[in-house]
Amino acid sequence: MENENGSAKTTGKVIRCKAAVCRSPGTALVIEEIEVDPPKAYEVRIKILCTSLCHSDISFWKLNIQHPFAVFPRIFGHEAVGVVESVGENVEEVKEGDLVLPVFQPHCGDCRDCKSPKSNACRGLPKLYDKMPRDGTSRFRSINGEVVHHFLFVSSFAEYTVVDAAHVVKIQPDIPVEKACLLSCGVSTGVGAAWKVADVEEGSTVAIFGLGAVGLAVAEGARSRRASKIIGVDLNPEKFEIGKKFGITDFINPTACGNKKVSEVIKEMTDGGADYCFECVGLTSLMEEAFNSNRGGWGKTVILGVDVNSLSLPLNPHELLQGRSVTGSLFGGLKPKSDIPFLVEKYLHQELNLEGFVTHEVSFQDINKAFELLVQGKTIRCIIWMEN
Amino acid sequence: MENENGSAKTTGKVIRCKAAVCRSPGTALVIEEIEVDPPKAYEVRIKILCTSLCHSDISFWKLNIQHPFAVFPRIFGHEAVGVVESVGENVEEVKEGDLVLPVFQPHCGDCRDCKSPKSNACRGLPKLYDKMPRDGTSRFRSINGEVVHHFLFVSSFAEYTVVDAAHVVKIQPDIPVEKACLLSCGVSTGVGAAWKVADVEEGSTVAIFGLGAVGLAVAEGARSRRASKIIGVDLNPEKFEIGKKFGITDFINPTACGNKKVSEVIKEMTDGGADYCFECVGLTSLMEEAFNSNRGGWGKTVILGVDVNSLSLPLNPHELLQGRSVTGSLFGGLKPKSDIPFLVEKYLHQELNLEGFVTHEVSFQDINKAFELLVQGKTIRCIIWMEN
Ligand SMILES: NC(=O)c1ccc[n+]([C@@H]2O[C@H](COP(=O)([O-])OP(=O)(O)OC[C@H]3O[C@@H](n4cnc5c(N)ncnc54)[C@H](O)[C@@H]3O)[C@@H](O)[C@H]2O)c1
Ligand SMILES: NC(=O)c1ccc[n+]([C@@H]2O[C@H](COP(=O)([O-])OP(=O)(O)OC[C@H]3O[C@@H](n4cnc5c(N)ncnc54)[C@H](O)[C@@H]3O)[C@@H](O)[C@H]2O)c1
Ligand SMILES: [Zn+2]
Ligand SMILES: [Zn+2]
Ligand SMILES: [Zn+2]
Ligand SMILES: [Zn+2]
Repeated sequence: MENENGSAKTTGKVIRCKAAVCRSPGTALVIEEIEVDPPKAYEVRIKILCTSLCHSDISFWKLNIQHPFAVFPRIFGHEAVGVVESVGENVEEVKEGDLVLPVFQPHCGDCRDCKSPKSNACRGLPKLYDKMPRDGTSRFRSINGEVVHHFLFVSSFAEYTVVDAAHVVKIQPDIPVEKACLLSCGVSTGVGAAWKVADVEEGSTVAIFGLGAVGLAVAEGARSRRASKIIGVDLNPEKFEIGKKFGITDFINPTACGNKKVSEVIKEMTDGGADYCFECVGLTSLMEEAFNSNRGGWGKTVILGVDVNSLSLPLNPHELLQGRSVTGSLFGGLKPKSDIPFLVEKYLHQELNLEGFVTHEVSFQDINKAFELLVQGKTIRCIIWMEN
Repeated sequence: MENENGSAKTTGKVIRCKAAVCRSPGTALVIEEIEVDPPKAYEVRIKILCTSLCHSDISFWKLNIQHPFAVFPRIFGHEAVGVVESVGENVEEVKEGDLVLPVFQPHCGDCRDCKSPKSNACRGLPKLYDKMPRDGTSRFRSINGEVVHHFLFVSSFAEYTVVDAAHVVKIQPDIPVEKACLLSCGVSTGVGAAWKVADVEEGSTVAIFGLGAVGLAVAEGARSRRASKIIGVDLNPEKFEIGKKFGITDFINPTACGNKKVSEVIKEMTDGGADYCFECVGLTSLMEEAFNSNRGGWGKTVILGVDVNSLSLPLNPHELLQGRSVTGSLFGGLKPKSDIPFLVEKYLHQELNLEGFVTHEVSFQDINKAFELLVQGKTIRCIIWMEN
């Protein structure tokens, strides 16, 4: 941002600032000047403080250009924390200066799902993954006037972004911003899945496929519930040492199981199958393996990973009949506006451990380094600091 | 039974009696003289009063001879009521003269599943579908000495059968025997699925695929919980009139949906999908359709049907992520020894309607008529009366 210094001066005006724009699938982001429109009714313009990279960014970034969700140029990023710069009409919940998390999961508060304690699948707004949900347009332009698309209702790889009020959560400013940032997607997803979706109880056995931020947050959720055994499955052997800090008690590397399937190894380790299995990679083949690792009677498999390339998860119906169940959830089944403040409270009361997730920090201009680190499995979360 | 009159005379002896033996897949049963051994330790010999035909008998009866579960000669039948003729050593729970239901679902009382309130998937005994579970042998012989196999731990198409004590439930004799018989499999399965597995609440919407005894019992369970809409799906249009008596409010015949899928029709009727969907036919294609008829957020699909010809149920993982879940259960998630007496109580207090399930009654010698009626979709349950 070169022309203004304070938000008082920018309210109602187009902001010119820097964004990391992706122009084609899988290519390095380019830091460009863009124009960010003022928020319309029910919208909030946010100055991003820091953002981090979640695997969902990678999945959409690498999407084959033929895929219906492959839209470019685009501003990725959906795990972030920022300060409200200005609000559009009818926004009363937050005001200029508030510390907020933009979140991909909506929470309108008015729809049947929002009103039910059983659901977080808000259906109050259209699901448009590359546009503003209410009017289907973009708030971003390159300086030559070309439209730049949104991503997952957030687009945090920019100094300023515009987000629908249904996707904004106000949080107390006592939490360090880089910890708050984690709660904007991956960590909330994993902890919510353990606490709310699976409702892991003391003494239970847990198997986690994929030890990224999501899987490790599941481990943290299960550890805090006093699970007796938390088995981590990952191709990357370095994840075991890291995982121990989050409560992983046993580690399985699928390439070191010989002729045995991972599910067979887990069944042996857990007297017939784990009570709770979580898929945190995003491969239907692993979702199936997670399901097969579940015990009969009450075994529950929770799908968190997103496989952008597959529409079919084949399950053996006879295994279901033995009393197994499968469920999936976005954002760990959490309702953002009520449950994120709850997680912040838990963190502030030392009942939720957020240490260890941030393994790297880079400046905004080095954002492509964050991509490299995550793709290579070298980082859990890399915080990308805005310079302004 | 031609040689004896009272059980006092038969205790400890081989009983010669009539059984309807199936000698090859899909062929008419033949009423033959057989020999029934006395019960061994932990076993109970039961004099069958009446039995009925469940679709699972049909599925195993028609099994391709190559199928690993196709074992002949065999005595089918697993929905029945009888009187204890004698007990083997270590059986204290029931005694001669008690009214009992033999049930395919075990309930040993000692295993981890039996001890948990969350499961009915007893794993105390081996799952041998054609033998006595404890010693892997048969108690049936044809009079020329040929072994005749068991079926699903019950084999009720015989005047006398031997069942493991884990598969015997004592019931109060106030209930008419033909009503009690229904609770031995199909009706308990459907009611249990609605009450215990899905836990249908007041005002919810329910879709039931297949309106046989299992599906209609789901309807009865949902009706008694005051579901607001109970949609029945069946290829047989006669099932709608019958279904109304069990609380079915809307009917869909898949052949009358034009270009639309059944799931699309259900989504239109329920503002985006039913809260609970039940598959009560036994086809993976319908299980998938049931899943697709579920609403996001909290929609639950319960698989009850048994597809003996398929090992793969393909689900769209992205639909799971929207907060849907799938679960399956045998015997409606009920623990036979505690929950069947509970259902009998409910029936005696008019809180469970068992009228309308029995549409036909035949004598044992006409047992093949019961097969014809069920295969042709002409009966819900046909009671087969023993003559003794
Ligand atoms: N449901 C939601 O709301 C939600 C939210 C955030 C992320 N996600 C999804 O969760 C998944 C994980 O995200 P993340 O940010 O933790 O990812 P990550 O890249 O940090 O971690 C993924 C882990 O999986 C491991 N892995 C990869 N292939 C594997 C295999 N075949 N077997 C075992 N392990 C394997 C990797 O080594 C890595 O440790 C992604 O699919 C992401 O899209 C879903
Ligand atoms: N899970 C358990 O513990 C358990 C217990 C009992 C029965 N079962 C299974 O439940 C299923 C139902 O048993 P039942 O005795 O009620 O059977 P049934 O034969 O009485 O009823 C089945 C119904 O499904 C209908 N149907 C068949 N094909 C259909 C299709 N393509 N679309 C829509 N409807 C269709 C038939 O017209 C019939 O009304 C069977 O698969 C049986 O093996 C499971
Ligand atoms: Zn994410
Ligand atoms: Zn909503
Ligand atoms: Zn049955
Ligand atoms: Zn048991």
